[in-house]
Amino acid sequence: MDHHTEIEIHGNSNPIQISRLALDIGGSLIKLVYFSRNSGDDEDPLNDSVGVSNAVNGRLHFAKFETTKINDCLQFISANKLLLGGFQHQENFSNDRNFIKATGGGAYKFSDLFKEKLGIRLEKEDEMDCLVTGANFLLKAVNHEAFTYLNGQKEFVQIDHNDLYPYLLVNIGSGVSMIKVDGDGKFERVSGTSVGGGTFWGLGKLLTKCQSFDELLELSHQGNNRVIDMLVGDIYGGMDYSKIGLSSTAIASSFGRTISNNKELQDYKPEDISRSLLRMISNNIGQISYLNALRFGLKRIFFGGFFIRGHSYTLDTISVAVHFWSKGEAKAMFLRHEGFLGALGAFMSYERHSLEDLVVNQSEQLQVDASSGTDKNCNPLKGDLNETESIQCSVYRA
Amino acid sequence: MDHHTEIEIHGNSNPIQISRLALDIGGSLIKLVYFSRNSGDDEDPLNDSVGVSNAVNGRLHFAKFETTKINDCLQFISANKLLLGGFQHQENFSNDRNFIKATGGGAYKFSDLFKEKLGIRLEKEDEMDCLVTGANFLLKAVNHEAFTYLNGQKEFVQIDHNDLYPYLLVNIGSGVSMIKVDGDGKFERVSGTSVGGGTFWGLGKLLTKCQSFDELLELSHQGNNRVIDMLVGDIYGGMDYSKIGLSSTAIASSFGRTISNNKELQDYKPEDISRSLLRMISNNIGQISYLNALRFGLKRIFFGGFFIRGHSYTLDTISVAVHFWSKGEAKAMFLRHEGFLGALGAFMSYERHSLEDLVVNQSEQLQVDASSGTDKNCNPLKGDLNETESIQCSVYRA
Repeated sequence: MDHHTEIEIHGNSNPIQISRLALDIGGSLIKLVYFSRNSGDDEDPLNDSVGVSNAVNGRLHFAKFETTKINDCLQFISANKLLLGGFQHQENFSNDRNFIKATGGGAYKFSDLFKEKLGIRLEKEDEMDCLVTGANFLLKAVNHEAFTYLNGQKEFVQIDHNDLYPYLLVNIGSGVSMIKVDGDGKFERVSGTSVGGGTFWGLGKLLTKCQSFDELLELSHQGNNRVIDMLVGDIYGGMDYSKIGLSSTAIASSFGRTISNNKELQDYKPEDISRSLLRMISNNIGQISYLNALRFGLKRIFFGGFFIRGHSYTLDTISVAVHFWSKGEAKAMFLRHEGFLGALGAFMSYERHSLEDLVVNQSEQLQVDASSGTDKNCNPLKGDLNETESIQCSVYRA
Repeated sequence: MDHHTEIEIHGNSNPIQISRLALDIGGSLIKLVYFSRNSGDDEDPLNDSVGVSNAVNGRLHFAKFETTKINDCLQFISANKLLLGGFQHQENFSNDRNFIKATGGGAYKFSDLFKEKLGIRLEKEDEMDCLVTGANFLLKAVNHEAFTYLNGQKEFVQIDHNDLYPYLLVNIGSGVSMIKVDGDGKFERVSGTSVGGGTFWGLGKLLTKCQSFDELLELSHQGNNRVIDMLVGDIYGGMDYSKIGLSSTAIASSFGRTISNNKELQDYKPEDISRSLLRMISNNIGQISYLNALRFGLKRIFFGGFFIRGHSYTLDTISVAVHFWSKGEAKAMFLRHEGFLGALGAFMSYERHSLEDLVVNQSEQLQVDASSGTDKNCNPLKGDLNETESIQCSVYRA
C-alpha cells in the first residue's frame, strides 16, 4: 500500500446507517475507502461537539493496492477488521451485513475470492455510476478539491454548486473513460481511449527497467523528450512551420527520432523515454477529452483516476493540450482525491440504498468544512496534494 | 528504394509546360514524382494517338527513399537524369529551369545539400497545400483511386466530382495532419496528432529487433494483441461491460497486460508487440479523425500517407474505429497512391505557377482513363494495390 489519505467525518450515529468499507477493483489498482470511528467516540455515540445530534465522528480512509497483489489487500482488510465497519472497539457489535460494496471489473472477477477468503459477498455497483457519484460528492462536499494547473501553479477552483453541470469527467485508469455529467445520477459515457495509465506503465515497463509506476513517473522528471520525439524543427531544419501555427519545438512525431539512427533501446536514457511516453499519453488524452467536450459544449473537464497522481508534468501537459486545442475556451481541472472517485461512489451507495427515505439527494445535504487548525491542510496550496492528508468534515442529516 | 509505381500520362507537348521531378521530403521518407516521356514518343511530339493534339505521352513515376538515406536519393536523381525532366533521349534539350519543386520540412532542411550536390535550387511549396492538391487530383482524375475496407474487402468508391467537398483529409506520415478540404486550394488544417507512423516505427524499433518499417508491419500479421493488451474481459473476469456497450474483447488498455506479471521485454513475441502497437495507433488516429469529422459535419474521411501501405490490419482498424465511433455515420476511405499526395501536389505546382493563364482550374480539366488492356490493372480489385502498378492516363488541355 503506497497511498493513504483520510477525511475526518462526522456521521450518523446509527451503526446500520454508517458506511463502512467499499472497493473499486480496477485492471491495475484496488482502491479502498473505509470509515473508522474516532477513538473514544464510541463512548458517546450522540456526540454533538460540533452542534449536531445523531452524529458519529470519524474518518474516511483511502488506501490502494496493486490488483496483482490482491492477497495483500485481503490481508489488510482482515487485519484491520474492516468488515466490522471500523467499529473495532465494539467487540459485541453484530455484523448485520454480509456484503461489501464494490465496483470496477474486479468486483466481478474476484467475487469468488472474497467469498472464499473473507466469507463476504461483493455487492456490485456500476463503475460509471460510482465514478460520477464520487466526483459529484467531492466537487460539492469538499472544499479545495478541484484545481487548475497553469504555468507551474496549482490554483484551487471554487465550485458553484448551482453551476456545476454539465461537465466532462475523464477518468484515467488503466484505460480512459469520458463521461458527460448532467447531474446526480444523470450521465452518459460518451467516449474513452485505450491509451491510458496501463499504456504508460506497460510500455514504460517494457522500455525501461522500472519496477513500479511511481518509479517510472519519477524518472520522467529528469528526462528530456527532445532526444526521443521528432520535433517540427527536426523536419523543417530548425524552422517553425508558422503558416499553420506549429512552432519548431512542437512534437511532430512522438518517438519519431528513434527511427533516424542506429541506436538501440539500451542507448537511450530511461528518463528520456519515460518523459516522452508521459507526454505522448497525457497530450493524447487531453486532445481527445477536448474534442469530446467540444461535441457537447462543455467548458469544464475534470480529470480523475490514478494515472495523474498530482504529477506536475502530467498536469501541465494535459492542461496545455486542452488550452491549445480549445484555444483557451475549455479548462482542464483536477481533483485532489483523483484516484478514489469510483471507491467513494461505491462507499456512498450504501447510503443511497439503505437511506433513500432520509437522504433524497445526499450530496447536497453534505457540508464539509476544511479545518482551520494548525496542520498543513489549512493551506492546501502548499505541500504535495497527493501526500497523506486529512480534511475535517461534518456530515449533517437532512 | 522499395516502392515504385507509375501512371502513364499524355501531357502537353511543350517541354516548358511539362512537369518533371517534384519532391516531398518528410521526417521519415522522401517521396519523388517524376515524368518520363514514352520511348519513341520524342520523335512525334505532336502525338495524337488518343485523339489529342499538343500532347506528350509518358508516365508518372513514384519512388521513395528513407530521409536518412538522402544521399541515395541524390544519387538516384543524378543517375536517372531526372533534372532533365525525364527527357533523357533529347541530349540537346536545354534545362530551362534551375529549380525543382519540393515540399515537406526537408525542402527547407536539405535546401543547401541539393544546391551543393546537384547545383539545383529547391523551390518550396507549402506542405498542406500540396497534400490537398495531390488528393484532389487523385480523387478527380484517377479512376479506382479511393476505396473502402469493410469485412476484409476492398471496394472502390466512385467519386462524384460535383459532390466531393467537403471532406476530411488525414495524412499519416511521421506525424498526422487533419485537413478540412472545401475545394481546390480551399482548406484548413484543423487538427493533427503526434502519434503517427514515426511513433509506430520508433516504438516498434525500440521494442523489437526489426530493421525496417515494412518488416515491422509484416510481423504484425502473425501477432496476437491479446497477449499485450488488457481487454475488458481481463478486468471483468471474462464478462462484457454490456451496460456501456463494451464487449469482453474490447481493448480496455493498450499494452495494459504487460504490467501484470514479471515478464520482461524479451519474453514477448515481437509479432504480438507489433500488432498491439499497430492497433493502438491506427485506432487512435481513427478516433481523433472521426471526432474532427464530427465537428465539421464531414461524412467522408480520406486517409493518406505512407503509414498505411495498403496493410489490411491497418485498413481494418481505422475503418472499424471510424465506424464504431460514428455509429456508422462516417466512412473511412483510402487512396491507392496514399503516400504521394504531397509529392503529387508539388509536381502539379509547376503547372499552377507557369500556366495559370491556360489552366484556370487544372484538376477539372484532367481526365484519366483506366486502361482496359490485359494487364492486372484493368481489374484493380485483384492484387495488392500497393504493388507496382501503372494506370494509363490522358491529360487534356483546356
